[in-house]
Amino acid sequence: MKTRKVAVLGATGAVGQKFVRLLEGHPWFKLSEVYASERSAGKTYAEATNWLEESPMPQAARGLEVKTDTYDLDADICFSAIPGGKAGPAEREFARRGYAVFSNARDLRMEPDVPLVIAEVNGDHLGLVETQKKAAKSDGFVVTNGNCTTIVLAMTLKPLHDAFGVDRVQMVSMQALSGAGYPGVASLDITENVIPYIGGEEEKVLAETPKFLGRLNASHVEPAPMTISATCTRVPVIEGHTEAISVQLARKAQGEDVLRAFESFQGPKEVRGLPSAPEHPIVVRSEENRPQPRKDRGAGNFMSVVVGRIRPDSVLDWKYVALGSNTVRGAAGGSILNAELAVTKRLL
Amino acid sequence: MKTRKVAVLGATGAVGQKFVRLLEGHPWFKLSEVYASERSAGKTYAEATNWLEESPMPQAARGLEVKTDTYDLDADICFSAIPGGKAGPAEREFARRGYAVFSNARDLRMEPDVPLVIAEVNGDHLGLVETQKKAAKSDGFVVTNGNCTTIVLAMTLKPLHDAFGVDRVQMVSMQALSGAGYPGVASLDITENVIPYIGGEEEKVLAETPKFLGRLNASHVEPAPMTISATCTRVPVIEGHTEAISVQLARKAQGEDVLRAFESFQGPKEVRGLPSAPEHPIVVRSEENRPQPRKDRGAGNFMSVVVGRIRPDSVLDWKYVALGSNTVRGAAGGSILNAELAVTKRLL
Amino acid sequence: MKTRKVAVLGATGAVGQKFVRLLEGHPWFKLSEVYASERSAGKTYAEATNWLEESPMPQAARGLEVKTDTYDLDADICFSAIPGGKAGPAEREFARRGYAVFSNARDLRMEPDVPLVIAEVNGDHLGLVETQKKAAKSDGFVVTNGNCTTIVLAMTLKPLHDAFGVDRVQMVSMQALSGAGYPGVASLDITENVIPYIGGEEEKVLAETPKFLGRLNASHVEPAPMTISATCTRVPVIEGHTEAISVQLARKAQGEDVLRAFESFQGPKEVRGLPSAPEHPIVVRSEENRPQPRKDRGAGNFMSVVVGRIRPDSVLDWKYVALGSNTVRGAAGGSILNAELAVTKRLL
Amino acid sequence: MKTRKVAVLGATGAVGQKFVRLLEGHPWFKLSEVYASERSAGKTYAEATNWLEESPMPQAARGLEVKTDTYDLDADICFSAIPGGKAGPAEREFARRGYAVFSNARDLRMEPDVPLVIAEVNGDHLGLVETQKKAAKSDGFVVTNGNCTTIVLAMTLKPLHDAFGVDRVQMVSMQALSGAGYPGVASLDITENVIPYIGGEEEKVLAETPKFLGRLNASHVEPAPMTISATCTRVPVIEGHTEAISVQLARKAQGEDVLRAFESFQGPKEVRGLPSAPEHPIVVRSEENRPQPRKDRGAGNFMSVVVGRIRPDSVLDWKYVALGSNTVRGAAGGSILNAELAVTKRLL
Repeated sequence: MKTRKVAVLGATGAVGQKFVRLLEGHPWFKLSEVYASERSAGKTYAEATNWLEESPMPQAARGLEVKTDTYDLDADICFSAIPGGKAGPAEREFARRGYAVFSNARDLRMEPDVPLVIAEVNGDHLGLVETQKKAAKSDGFVVTNGNCTTIVLAMTLKPLHDAFGVDRVQMVSMQALSGAGYPGVASLDITENVIPYIGGEEEKVLAETPKFLGRLNASHVEPAPMTISATCTRVPVIEGHTEAISVQLARKAQGEDVLRAFESFQGPKEVRGLPSAPEHPIVVRSEENRPQPRKDRGAGNFMSVVVGRIRPDSVLDWKYVALGSNTVRGAAGGSILNAELAVTKRLL
Repeated sequence: MKTRKVAVLGATGAVGQKFVRLLEGHPWFKLSEVYASERSAGKTYAEATNWLEESPMPQAARGLEVKTDTYDLDADICFSAIPGGKAGPAEREFARRGYAVFSNARDLRMEPDVPLVIAEVNGDHLGLVETQKKAAKSDGFVVTNGNCTTIVLAMTLKPLHDAFGVDRVQMVSMQALSGAGYPGVASLDITENVIPYIGGEEEKVLAETPKFLGRLNASHVEPAPMTISATCTRVPVIEGHTEAISVQLARKAQGEDVLRAFESFQGPKEVRGLPSAPEHPIVVRSEENRPQPRKDRGAGNFMSVVVGRIRPDSVLDWKYVALGSNTVRGAAGGSILNAELAVTKRLL
Repeated sequence: MKTRKVAVLGATGAVGQKFVRLLEGHPWFKLSEVYASERSAGKTYAEATNWLEESPMPQAARGLEVKTDTYDLDADICFSAIPGGKAGPAEREFARRGYAVFSNARDLRMEPDVPLVIAEVNGDHLGLVETQKKAAKSDGFVVTNGNCTTIVLAMTLKPLHDAFGVDRVQMVSMQALSGAGYPGVASLDITENVIPYIGGEEEKVLAETPKFLGRLNASHVEPAPMTISATCTRVPVIEGHTEAISVQLARKAQGEDVLRAFESFQGPKEVRGLPSAPEHPIVVRSEENRPQPRKDRGAGNFMSVVVGRIRPDSVLDWKYVALGSNTVRGAAGGSILNAELAVTKRLL
Repeated sequence: MKTRKVAVLGATGAVGQKFVRLLEGHPWFKLSEVYASERSAGKTYAEATNWLEESPMPQAARGLEVKTDTYDLDADICFSAIPGGKAGPAEREFARRGYAVFSNARDLRMEPDVPLVIAEVNGDHLGLVETQKKAAKSDGFVVTNGNCTTIVLAMTLKPLHDAFGVDRVQMVSMQALSGAGYPGVASLDITENVIPYIGGEEEKVLAETPKFLGRLNASHVEPAPMTISATCTRVPVIEGHTEAISVQLARKAQGEDVLRAFESFQGPKEVRGLPSAPEHPIVVRSEENRPQPRKDRGAGNFMSVVVGRIRPDSVLDWKYVALGSNTVRGAAGGSILNAELAVTKRLL
């Protein structure tokens, strides 16, 4: 596999830093550019960045000059961690100029021509890339990953939806602090506390989940016809979103069927073996008190979703608890896996 | 009102201590006896107790000799904080010998002759006391309060059930550490973590809620016919259980109706004005990020349940977030209020 | 005592809110004005303020119009919670125009003509007020309270200094989140962590402590001649600064002498009985594992400093652990007590 | 290097588990036996153990039968995590029967014939092993590691003592929860709190530090003549002890000298390159807000001590903040490194 040069957009923020760290030592991708807002103009990445990761800043990134206010980057791929609200126009312009953009931002996720992708769930939606390219008359394109909470939910719904059809979903999340970026949540607000509201989060879960689970029809995605209810809360956990999920299924399922659906879940063949793909996209824990964020977020190198407490639900049909890393699987790692899949599919 | 002498059973434990603290300065009740297990034999309460409350141990309690292994107490009322599993036989025996026992223990809650009572919700179930007395040929009796999580849930379901009928309930709790007693949850288990399981808790919610909302028929309670699903989790919060609740109603309700049901909720007339009764059993907060345990648990002197985020639910009908103090309203304070109501009803 | 009208400057911030809450129901002072920066222009206090206190915003404050950009307030006393850096010039100007300003800001604390006061420690330094008045040809003046960490330290050094002379002090603090204001410390930085540095804090401890313990000579304060070393750290505690303190004394002291010095400490007679003065400025706990912030910060209505673990120090002479509320005793409550003392001394 | 078979004593506890995990994949040592108390009799390690580590239990350990009540183990080396109080007699007996025992328990640390060793600090004290062997007429022996807090302190004092002589030490620790074992500290005690006392800890620091820094004279260790004062506190951190340290030196040192002493610190040549030896036993951070437990505990694979905030101390001479992993460097990892050194020195 030839090495691709990659740029990280919004590289100095929390998600940008996660991209930089995950790209260190990547077998296919080599960080060649870091791009950020005007504030970082004229600085090296080391100077411009308040490094938040626990491992040290990769040597290869330290000396890179932060680029600002240009669409001229020495890169084939752009990973975008540009803040929501500003990301959309910039990402479109980078695509127009020929870059393959893999975005973590919310702005374009629901655009009809933009694939919203979890590699193992709907990698085939990358088919939209051709539509995009044609319309823009460019080799560039934008692919988005999805909201972190939604990614955890959608990954667990996928095997159930394939096997039994999912009609209705109730989800209550207990989300980690790192989901709010940095500085994010004030310690005075969340220490020894729960905040039962996260602005915009429930709307994203409702909008994105059916698109993830939808069907690609020629040039657009037919959303999966399901009803979803979400309550999103913040808890004093650093990393890892926990979700209590209940589902009503179209076809009756026995406990062993549900278990087997989770345990046997594999992405499409072309995803398996990708550098960032975990061996098991879903890991089932049988202990009654798992998954737990501190103990399970690292599963599959932070790329697996861990499911436990699978049991009948007296109101809907089945319920379980799911947990996933919000900053890796639910953000930077998910985008990198999407790019790996796109490379394999020869989209760039 | 003549002053009643009261004993606290299981007085040295966490809930026992809460009883002792709440009884300090009570206008009707005077702590006269503390009773605990053999380990405390021969000690004063101050010597026997690892005091956990943040305010100092009441002077009146310090010097009391801890009684053990006797049913002969200088008291009219016994508040029982005896651990579940041991409480049942002891409480029955105290009742047989003429004491009015108000219990926080789980053992007898589902016994057909024992009222399971939240004063504002089903104070009329105290009618079972007469049945009990007759059967036992004693002036004594046992009244229980209920599981802390269930009390918060049932208080919020009551006005909805009265106004619209509650058919189905989905509840996900985020429960405080103090609900597990002392030493309870190890800090290594819960720091920066969520534990998505609490042994026996979901079963209690399912069993007790219909009894609270049920109808007293002659000598037993007809449980309310409703379907309940519960997922109970532990979060790193000291005090205050948060619950994300969705309900399906028998009769269609508009938002303003639901709001009005909560806001206008009052217990029966005889409860209002009792020393431990909060002015508003349910407090509605309109801010989108409330209720929060650290900010709202103290409402109504820890006796109100705070409700927020009332909104339509796409899967069932309505959803909201509720919060209540698990150690006061959900434990010792609830039992004391039950005793006040029993006194007013001249049951002792 | 005639009621004084008081204004809170910087009223919308965290310390400003603490002033507003503590003034609710004050027997001598009545909140008449709230003053803040331009951002709040034209709003009521309720509209302008993101209320952080756990008890509700006082009714009397809600409807007050926030004043900005004026020195014309309907008040006798100004409590200043203006942010450091901006406070100095504003406070001087308010003083020049005749207001008695009691400041929580750092700007003027070390000014020779400005008393830096803990009522029980050096209430007599209020004598500087006359100097100030004369120089400014105004009835107004400024009195400051001191850094929160320093206040806890200085209160415990005072009785030792009076009895034995304090020559050298080693102090390591474990400071609460509320000391950093709001939003203050990011939860991602401090959750399950210690930050061993607080900008500017150690310098304040070194500068202010000798002034608190110094002697008022005619028109200036002779700082106490002592050597101080401070290491200030932040820990995940909401309220209450803990300090491990070692002292070297000029005159030999026995353990009972040290204990007696702490236990018998009283401010000057005129301070005792002031509305905000605690009965015991220093509370000594004999348990080996006290003081603890969560259990002891409330002592004396958050105005006492709690001392424990008094024992010989092999390097210096004696050591102990001290704890005090940083937002009440160490901030707003301390200033209010200073104002009460000034009223009693007929300085306004 | 031939592979040695190793047993873990007290294998089911928290430290025992840490030994089991750290031994996974060790190049020289192969876990062959797990030994624990009667309670585990007849169980496999997987059955007997409430596994606390975040990575899964090593496959090689799962099926091992837990041995109890025997001194007949198929092993050359015993790593002992037997609880303090019980460890001493058992360890002596294992030694008498020919096993090389590397202990984490406190019982024998101060025994004159038992080396108390940090490989990089006083690896030469392993010379005591010959004395021990002779006296016991056995090939077996006991080597201990030291208290976790003391290990962090002693590692940072060593280069200063070698270069300048350390006369006096003031240390205030902020210790992690994992230092108290499991279940250890109750969450209700430590959440949002500091506990300024840890039973027996300060005594260990005072006793062990001079032995670590002492000189091996023929058959005993001459303790280093230094005066130490310690205050040990517990903070809500999972892993990593933070220590604020001040030292008075025998010979004047400039800042650059102190810095160089830390940065150039290396253990004896024979320690460098051992499988568990970090490249830098001490890592110096120049940022003013480091070291922090959550960000720095992992340095050198949890085997480095991180030092920061090096600056003059006005009371003694120099001060700094040190941080080290209490469960790896301060416990199991330190013992394994000791065993590696003993193997290299051909003591077994």
